[in-house]
Amino acid sequence: MSIPTYDDSNIFAKILAGDIPSHKVYEDDRTLAFMDIMPQHKVHVFVIQKQQAMELSDLEPEYAQAVLMAAKKVMQAQRKVLNREGIVQMQLNGSEAGQTVPHYHVHLVPTSIHELGKHGLSNNQADQAELAELAKQFADAID
Amino acid sequence: MSIPTYDDSNIFAKILAGDIPSHKVYEDDRTLAFMDIMPQHKVHVFVIQKQQAMELSDLEPEYAQAVLMAAKKVMQAQRKVLNREGIVQMQLNGSEAGQTVPHYHVHLVPTSIHELGKHGLSNNQADQAELAELAKQFADAID
Repeated sequence: MSIPTYDDSNIFAKILAGDIPSHKVYEDDRTLAFMDIMPQHKVHVFVIQKQQAMELSDLEPEYAQAVLMAAKKVMQAQRKVLNREGIVQMQLNGSEAGQTVPHYHVHLVPTSIHELGKHGLSNNQADQAELAELAKQFADAID
Repeated sequence: MSIPTYDDSNIFAKILAGDIPSHKVYEDDRTLAFMDIMPQHKVHVFVIQKQQAMELSDLEPEYAQAVLMAAKKVMQAQRKVLNREGIVQMQLNGSEAGQTVPHYHVHLVPTSIHELGKHGLSNNQADQAELAELAKQFADAID
């Protein structure tokens, strides 16, 4: 296996650099959470670390901690806003697993394992105004 | 919503307490990784933290870090042994999401998001000898 290197032109790197806008839900020194613009479910949030890690095998311990703790905050906000308990947390490692953006990211999807695979991944963009409104609601629900 | 409390009779608590055997892949002060005995895929590994956390919202920062760092080691071992790159990492939060054991756990499944939902979760026990052999291979592949 060749060892790939981090590609800083990927879409999440551009979001982190501020070159592409996103509907931000949460941010701290080590993480950023934002709405998926092509969500399987409209309420799908990504949490990423501010470290150039392609996937789990590249993740540094302090960023591993930060990304899970940020995911914890976002999940609690999703529950409050959506009044729904079940949240699937998922990370795809490697394109063979279905990873499309080569920057480690936590998917937080209000769904169940039984529904998850049924729809496949969406190629449709969600309504931007709706995403902006949801991002605001989630952000407001984080203490 | 009522606030449930940790149930220390759950199967992972019993495995951590040593009351139920498991096919161990990895262990450190804060985590344990072992083979799923009812795997969707035979090569499915669970990684759990030695903290009484039911799900992500209960996870303490040091255990969040530990469980992801242990998952990183196990994933690398799965890749070596199976000669396969794609690993889906998944955590189900809440029974509504399909969580069946109320102790936070990372699923490491050599599959893809596209295949994940197709088969549903298995109710069949895998062959114990085969699981023991795989656990040994994975454990040996961890530095």
